[in-house]
Amino acid sequence: MAHIKLTLVLGSGSRIGPGKAALLESIEATGSIAAAAREMRMDYKRAWLLIDSLNTAFTSPAVERVAGGSGGGGAVLTPLGRDLVARYRRLEAAAAELAAEDLRALEARAVPAGGTL
Amino acid sequence: MAHIKLTLVLGSGSRIGPGKAALLESIEATGSIAAAAREMRMDYKRAWLLIDSLNTAFTSPAVERVAGGSGGGGAVLTPLGRDLVARYRRLEAAAAELAAEDLRALEARAVPAGGTL
Repeated sequence: MAHIKLTLVLGSGSRIGPGKAALLESIEATGSIAAAAREMRMDYKRAWLLIDSLNTAFTSPAVERVAGGSGGGGAVLTPLGRDLVARYRRLEAAAAELAAEDLRALEARAVPAGGTL
Repeated sequence: MAHIKLTLVLGSGSRIGPGKAALLESIEATGSIAAAAREMRMDYKRAWLLIDSLNTAFTSPAVERVAGGSGGGGAVLTPLGRDLVARYRRLEAAAAELAAEDLRALEARAVPAGGTL
């Protein structure tokens, strides 16, 4: 189905798009970067690099490690991390609503999924 | 400066983002794919592939070759091509306006350009 992809680009070049937003949500849901990476079928290393890029993009981190628990510790979103997700999802929804009519109009003239055969 | 990047993704997977929008505008301004590619410091082949992907994404083309002229012919936007650019730029501007306050708020907590040294 036709949709938009929205990315926020900071002055430093740091980006927040659908991948990082979903990863933050998955960390919030699962309580760990490793579990979030598994849920998103992503290498742990890639997940860690995405989180590290967010953590170094701001003057305070978006994700913090927490000690304890049977799995030897996990990760939680900071207030900044939760704020990032909330802002991103709110903007994405508003932009999708803005785009709905244009997407319908373009889709009506588009070659259907499956290609040009 | 903080900004958004908006991409429209059709049901077929075809995408229209800032690169293709700028390329279409440059073709309209210069009258040829080769001149547009030069203006955008892009390989001719890459420009051609981007245009080909747009042309095959819809049931009619976005860019058409035209014969004649001292350069041996050029390229022009079709009504669909002009409509794509107009819709994309209008949506991008509206989404940027929507995002302005969030971008300011995030930028205020961001590490400045130049990094984390």
